Amino acid sequence: MFDAVVSPDVAEDEAALATPFVKCLVRLIRAQDSFGSWEGKSDAELLGDFIITKEQRRAIPIIGDPDPDVLWRLDMFYTAVGLAIEERSGLMASPMTEMSHEGFGRVVLTSGRLVVLSKTLRDVHRFGFETFWKLAAAGTKLAGDAIAAIEAYPEVARA
Amino acid sequence: MFDAVVSPDVAEDEAALATPFVKCLVRLIRAQDSFGSWEGKSDAELLGDFIITKEQRRAIPIIGDPDPDVLWRLDMFYTAVGLAIEERSGLMASPMTEMSHEGFGRVVLTSGRLVVLSKTLRDVHRFGFETFWKLAAAGTKLAGDAIAAIEAYPEVARA
Repeated sequence: MFDAVVSPDVAEDEAALATPFVKCLVRLIRAQDSFGSWEGKSDAELLGDFIITKEQRRAIPIIGDPDPDVLWRLDMFYTAVGLAIEERSGLMASPMTEMSHEGFGRVVLTSGRLVVLSKTLRDVHRFGFETFWKLAAAGTKLAGDAIAAIEAYPEVARA
Repeated sequence: MFDAVVSPDVAEDEAALATPFVKCLVRLIRAQDSFGSWEGKSDAELLGDFIITKEQRRAIPIIGDPDPDVLWRLDMFYTAVGLAIEERSGLMASPMTEMSHEGFGRVVLTSGRLVVLSKTLRDVHRFGFETFWKLAAAGTKLAGDAIAAIEAYPEVARA
């Protein structure tokens, strides 16, 4: 029947959930589950709110303060990028976020004296990814770019 | 009489107000005076709230959110450090501040890919300096340290 066939989408989701970046993100979120209320949830369920379809995206108004839950997810995402950087380079990369009430802002990750990642944030209200695969790809790319910066200036990252 | 003698303190204040850092700070504050309401004020009056004596300091409670005016002065101070860095190095140094509600936080100034200044903030509620001279010395030192970092890693600061 319909359910018995593993669709390419499902296989893609599984591959996405197995990437080192998404594993960092899941670990980070589970670490905040002090009361064990998410123990029964699968990784896909835990990350469900990171996924926003194009239609959902369009429906989110970008006026007023961004939702605190969105800000929390944004913070988790960039902290997970930092964690992925640490896993691969051994250097701690700490994130700093500055945000206006209108959902514009900037996130910076630093290691030692090196800015390993600097990104302008826009439409934070609508922060999310279309698929798990896009979530995994975005985080993996950011971590990869940061690693490249560390490799270009190793002594600054250790300063 | 008492007033006719220029006390060493007054001479010190004048020297402090003439330093490039304090001039940056004054310029920055005057730039925010859109309605010209501070035009009649001297530089010393304009910077008056940056000065907190030891007794005043002790009297400020460090519970609750820091006063918005204190946060504004903190922001002006570090933006002026950035401006002083730019004057001396030609490189723009943009500040980013992250603060908890308890008055602990971190300020980072970056130029290109270089962290030119990273400072932990404590007791933000009590941000201030005992004398104009101490204000001038603190800002000048921070700008000097940042310039030294830029000179140590010039290619990173321009990356």
